[in-house]
Amino acid sequence: MIKYYSVNGELVPKEEASLNVSDLAILRGYGMFDFFLVKKGQPLFFDDYLDRFERSAKLLNLEIPFSREALREQIMQVIRANGMQEAGLKLVLTGGYSGDGYAPAKPNLVIVQSPLPNYPSTKYTDGVKLMLHEYHRSLPTAKSINYIVGINLLPQMRAAGAEDVLFYFNEKIYETTRANFFIVKNDDTIVTAGEGILAGITRKKTLEIIPGNYRVEVRDLTLGELKTAREAFITSSTKNIMPVVLVDDITIGSGKPGKVTQHLMQLLEEKVQQYLAQPVG
Amino acid sequence: MIKYYSVNGELVPKEEASLNVSDLAILRGYGMFDFFLVKKGQPLFFDDYLDRFERSAKLLNLEIPFSREALREQIMQVIRANGMQEAGLKLVLTGGYSGDGYAPAKPNLVIVQSPLPNYPSTKYTDGVKLMLHEYHRSLPTAKSINYIVGINLLPQMRAAGAEDVLFYFNEKIYETTRANFFIVKNDDTIVTAGEGILAGITRKKTLEIIPGNYRVEVRDLTLGELKTAREAFITSSTKNIMPVVLVDDITIGSGKPGKVTQHLMQLLEEKVQQYLAQPVG
Repeated sequence: MIKYYSVNGELVPKEEASLNVSDLAILRGYGMFDFFLVKKGQPLFFDDYLDRFERSAKLLNLEIPFSREALREQIMQVIRANGMQEAGLKLVLTGGYSGDGYAPAKPNLVIVQSPLPNYPSTKYTDGVKLMLHEYHRSLPTAKSINYIVGINLLPQMRAAGAEDVLFYFNEKIYETTRANFFIVKNDDTIVTAGEGILAGITRKKTLEIIPGNYRVEVRDLTLGELKTAREAFITSSTKNIMPVVLVDDITIGSGKPGKVTQHLMQLLEEKVQQYLAQPVG
Repeated sequence: MIKYYSVNGELVPKEEASLNVSDLAILRGYGMFDFFLVKKGQPLFFDDYLDRFERSAKLLNLEIPFSREALREQIMQVIRANGMQEAGLKLVLTGGYSGDGYAPAKPNLVIVQSPLPNYPSTKYTDGVKLMLHEYHRSLPTAKSINYIVGINLLPQMRAAGAEDVLFYFNEKIYETTRANFFIVKNDDTIVTAGEGILAGITRKKTLEIIPGNYRVEVRDLTLGELKTAREAFITSSTKNIMPVVLVDDITIGSGKPGKVTQHLMQLLEEKVQQYLAQPVG
């Protein structure tokens, strides 16, 4: 049971974790976040996520109101208080209590713990469908809270039986609303977009396990290539590597999760276990 | 002195007007708003704004949790409680306390009153500068809280001495971050974008005062036309009609507010006074 969140460094019962309505996240959608898993009570790939959190803050001209050490300690305090060994943890940094309702002020920092989503195993054994939508995120390299297009498409996505929405623009495939996207070509080469995307940490870990096993190309990926791809998959912190077998009405390869994808799923799981086996420090 | 806001129909001291951090505005920037002026204690062009608020809610798949009459009464309650005859009033409707942090739930409704911004008169007598930026808003016809691009550009905008950022995309000029944009051509024809924009209420009122005085074209407006425009202006609830004399390094006409713009400024003021002279009810 999750009972506590943290607001500006103070542990509070989650019902009391609130921000005044003058916060710029509420008035202008101006804010950013990061999200990682807690496994065996430890944040997974902790430094990678803290690095990205700091990068996003710079891109949005927001100053994190705590040192990295203080932030790390606040996160561990929330994890200890809730006593939940396996969970999700989200850091949110907002534009703060703006004087004029537009210009950012001193940011508010919120830490929220949540249960892990439990994806049915069939999503991994059968693969999932994605829905295409023409859109390119604003300030894509920052993990901003701007999800307006993806959330607005939820009714269509559900109607289509899709797991997520895949964004493309000017023939280039970028990413989904909450995951990075990869294809595997006929010659086993793996391709994923290099620019104009949010660089996921699970994407990063996937790119680390590929060398020595497969060829990889990190570069613009086109809609045309999707039609001839033999395999496809998405990567995210909660989904890990999830096979994609259908994009709109385009069947990927045989319509089943491919061998390369399955191999990478196993290699990624080993990488996670390796991290968790390290001494904590 | 503004002392009270309203949250979900309850008048509360503004310091206590807060939303739990699980609200989708804070977690995912999912929400919308509207903003109008209060003059002589009365909301100006009240029904136009309430109409637009309802349109935005439909576009964002959010259900306003009160009837129009109840909403109207809550707004008047805030105005009476604060006793401020001239002010700004903002309605915010958020994605609510989402169970999974992504799908909208029952929306939260917030009413916030604020002092009117006081623009120096020189902005009207000398005109202002705009800064061009290539961007087209997502879901432009809904008044969403997504201002991430505009707010992120504040440092550059200030450095350029610009009053606002003018968005164009694929050679088409759309709108500024918080205003609509008009040009006046050499033959006195007035042009403003028709699609892909937020239809401002001050834009609407401006379009109502033009017929009988000038020709108007509501259609795509190109960057090329900006260079040969004789006058330009922006319209917004707080700025009314504000003359534009410089866009990046493009001087508009003589570099001074034009005659047509000044005429429209006067006609709009008359339209406001007409509205205020109507019996309330």
